[in-house]
Amino acid sequence: MTDDVTPDAMLESECVRRDIRAGRIRGTSRGLALGFVQCNLAILPKTYAFDFMLYCQRNQRACPVLEVTDPGDPVPRQLARGADLRTDCARYSVFIDGARQDDRTDLNDIWRDDLVAFLIGSSITFDAALERAGVPTDKDRWVLRTTVPTEPAGPFGGDLIVTMRWLTPAQAITATQVSARFPFNHGAPIHIGDPTTIGADLARPMFGGPVPPLPADRTPLFWACGVTPQSAAEVARLPLFLTHAAGHSFITDRKASSLMLP
Amino acid sequence: MTDDVTPDAMLESECVRRDIRAGRIRGTSRGLALGFVQCNLAILPKTYAFDFMLYCQRNQRACPVLEVTDPGDPVPRQLARGADLRTDCARYSVFIDGARQDDRTDLNDIWRDDLVAFLIGSSITFDAALERAGVPTDKDRWVLRTTVPTEPAGPFGGDLIVTMRWLTPAQAITATQVSARFPFNHGAPIHIGDPTTIGADLARPMFGGPVPPLPADRTPLFWACGVTPQSAAEVARLPLFLTHAAGHSFITDRKASSLMLP
Repeated sequence: MTDDVTPDAMLESECVRRDIRAGRIRGTSRGLALGFVQCNLAILPKTYAFDFMLYCQRNQRACPVLEVTDPGDPVPRQLARGADLRTDCARYSVFIDGARQDDRTDLNDIWRDDLVAFLIGSSITFDAALERAGVPTDKDRWVLRTTVPTEPAGPFGGDLIVTMRWLTPAQAITATQVSARFPFNHGAPIHIGDPTTIGADLARPMFGGPVPPLPADRTPLFWACGVTPQSAAEVARLPLFLTHAAGHSFITDRKASSLMLP
Repeated sequence: MTDDVTPDAMLESECVRRDIRAGRIRGTSRGLALGFVQCNLAILPKTYAFDFMLYCQRNQRACPVLEVTDPGDPVPRQLARGADLRTDCARYSVFIDGARQDDRTDLNDIWRDDLVAFLIGSSITFDAALERAGVPTDKDRWVLRTTVPTEPAGPFGGDLIVTMRWLTPAQAITATQVSARFPFNHGAPIHIGDPTTIGADLARPMFGGPVPPLPADRTPLFWACGVTPQSAAEVARLPLFLTHAAGHSFITDRKASSLMLP
């Protein structure tokens, strides 16, 4: 992954973040530092931080907050003491007055002293546990809008975003049990079966590419998704809102197993 | 419990709150509406609400936030739509500039439009599940200060407060398993065995009366306690801080089993 010498004491998560910061890794974080908690990032001015945190609390399945930084502090002191949130995602999305700007590879020149970063659990976190239980995580997976309203708070609101996975019936049962053990990373599915029940928009997936016809031996499962708070922040049309670019999550030093229930 | 006619459609939690509101119940909430989630209340001016919520997030085992009301709204719309937080605890404690005032039976004359109420999970919530599993919950239970520092946020900080229970070894194993299934109500114990390891102050229990010598067949177990945020708010010396009086928790309409993991 890199030709640097890797000190023995470095965690895999630290090595990966170093390589991202140095521009040696530019792609998705999916599959990197497997077994470490990955987070969705939401960074916004402190003025909006209480309402946003309230939104997350009211929609905890979609927005499990794992850490909130102090204003202006780019270091997530609980989840990755040696990290810098301005540089350690490979790609960032920037929204100004709700309008998406060009993606960036760092936030150095746009960082401000009043910015508060929310690190929100991601279902990538339980991919390793699913794989160990025999549930593949590398395909048949999409991020979709639904018509299920979230509980609003201040200017934040909008519909629930879900991750849909297609699994065999046996895998569906296993995946439900395994993900239920990660209540701080979206937990169990919120729905299984007919996508129309929750108004899942299969015609226009947000991520994952076009959705083909459902194979006869597959069951769709739907998990509350960490893109929900990002969507809520777009709804709120904040003057400034920063986030990781989809698929380029922030990798923490926290072991996924430490957030897994027995 | 009351000589009123109780409509069939009323939940036991609603009946109990009605009787509290009418002054017909004046004592502890422990043992009332068993099986319904009970909450610790923390009510403070909106100016401090973000820092307090941050404190709760950073100390989630002690401060699992189940709901936060909108400023000035005395109705917990997610947990008990028909309730009024100003009247539905039997007794309230009031702190002004960090100094405790006389307890009150309602908050009507002290309520303000900028007050935000935090409903925080209580370990009373898993008492019913412990009883079903054969673990007694009616005695040998104390609230103690420790010397374990909490993670501060803004003006909030201080040491962790714990609930200590004395159990037989078999009960200790059962209680650990059962409570672990309630991650949104303090979850598993934070410590088992020697109280001095966490600096638990057995000489000056906050609640539960004097602590006698430990019987030879008992093991002390320690759970993070919802009195912790109350203690943090006292540390912060807020101009106004309102809370339920110890043992007089707010009873919600939410079934404890709905917050229990399989």
